[in-house]
Amino acid sequence: MTKTITMAAATAGHAEGGTTLNAFDNALLAAGIGNINLIKVSSIVPPDVSIIELPKIKPGAIVPTAYAAMTSETPGETVAAAVGYALPDDPQKNGVIMEFHGVATREEAERQIRAMLDEAFSVRGETIHKMQVFAVDHTVERIGCALAAITLLAEEDLV
Amino acid sequence: MTKTITMAAATAGHAEGGTTLNAFDNALLAAGIGNINLIKVSSIVPPDVSIIELPKIKPGAIVPTAYAAMTSETPGETVAAAVGYALPDDPQKNGVIMEFHGVATREEAERQIRAMLDEAFSVRGETIHKMQVFAVDHTVERIGCALAAITLLAEEDLV
Amino acid sequence: MTKTITMAAATAGHAEGGTTLNAFDNALLAAGIGNINLIKVSSIVPPDVSIIELPKIKPGAIVPTAYAAMTSETPGETVAAAVGYALPDDPQKNGVIMEFHGVATREEAERQIRAMLDEAFSVRGETIHKMQVFAVDHTVERIGCALAAITLLAEEDLV
Repeated sequence: MTKTITMAAATAGHAEGGTTLNAFDNALLAAGIGNINLIKVSSIVPPDVSIIELPKIKPGAIVPTAYAAMTSETPGETVAAAVGYALPDDPQKNGVIMEFHGVATREEAERQIRAMLDEAFSVRGETIHKMQVFAVDHTVERIGCALAAITLLAEEDLV
Repeated sequence: MTKTITMAAATAGHAEGGTTLNAFDNALLAAGIGNINLIKVSSIVPPDVSIIELPKIKPGAIVPTAYAAMTSETPGETVAAAVGYALPDDPQKNGVIMEFHGVATREEAERQIRAMLDEAFSVRGETIHKMQVFAVDHTVERIGCALAAITLLAEEDLV
Repeated sequence: MTKTITMAAATAGHAEGGTTLNAFDNALLAAGIGNINLIKVSSIVPPDVSIIELPKIKPGAIVPTAYAAMTSETPGETVAAAVGYALPDDPQKNGVIMEFHGVATREEAERQIRAMLDEAFSVRGETIHKMQVFAVDHTVERIGCALAAITLLAEEDLV
């Protein structure tokens, strides 16, 4: 796309909803990204990208996003979603994003992400300069969703 | 993406096919969007977008689209797909799109969409100014697909 | 998106990994597309696009890609992924891409793709000028992935 990705921002949220899609929508709202268009990407941090706090994004903006979501309709079940990124020593090389969703606790999700990022850097022959993981879990009342996301942003996406 | 979304157009279609992917392809053709590249979005109507009839879109155009599809290889089974949007009173705020697919009739799919849009607006604290639902069902002969979609379009996507 | 797709390049790869997501990541690396952001498209070759060998793509580039992947955690199982395209006689008309993934051999995957492309052209009333299929299989040791992809590229995506 012609717009240039210059920022990445992570977030996570969880919520109940009347349907699984509403639970997902509500989790997006809880995460602060419920009014934008997510396009799922698989899942690289471009070189020279700034990691920032989630900014105010224009409503309806079309935003490439690596995300994981887990919905459940089983009351009492704990579900988790997590994303994490790792950046290499050389800022001109790309970072890697990993996602996890499942019946799990937040701690288990975080551990999975770290292990996946470790392997991703090991196979690339790179060492990890910085790693950060964003995870959330949700214990279902009726219908619930846990969601974690890393948005890839351009200047024009911001309010 | 740098192109600016200024229009949204909904459509639906259903078809049989020799494989599930061909049934999906044939349903896309029946819906008039079989020769473009759909990118799945999750799923907001940007502010100030015109809702239009499905226009002629350039072959191969890459079009962010909220869509739902249900394929089935069970002869006699009725499957449905639906999308719907709701717009708020304030045209500078975004609308919301919901999708449904499943073993269901068109009427059931429509009811689901309306309920999901109601909840989406309720949690956003907005009232619905306009709501429209596009649904289709298909009773499978051998391998069938029901599909409904809302395309998000820019001027440059049109023929 | 404003960038203009002028090239398409296919590739395939397979790998083991410590998790299914790492196996997928490793298969992407084996295929030469492990350091870019794939956006899944459904799945048309735009008119007047050159089919090229996989070029060097900028790390982190956001690339619309038709892909199929099959991961398995069943040791001894053979999984396959394939993509193929067919182009019509008239270069100003679009081509079609089909994807396959499943528990299958490479030969079975290739046959599926050919049959799906034949049907896609038959229903469009076009004859196939050129067809090419890219398939790979993988016999799982512990956790494996087979992946095949056709990337849709713009000049600006290349190194």
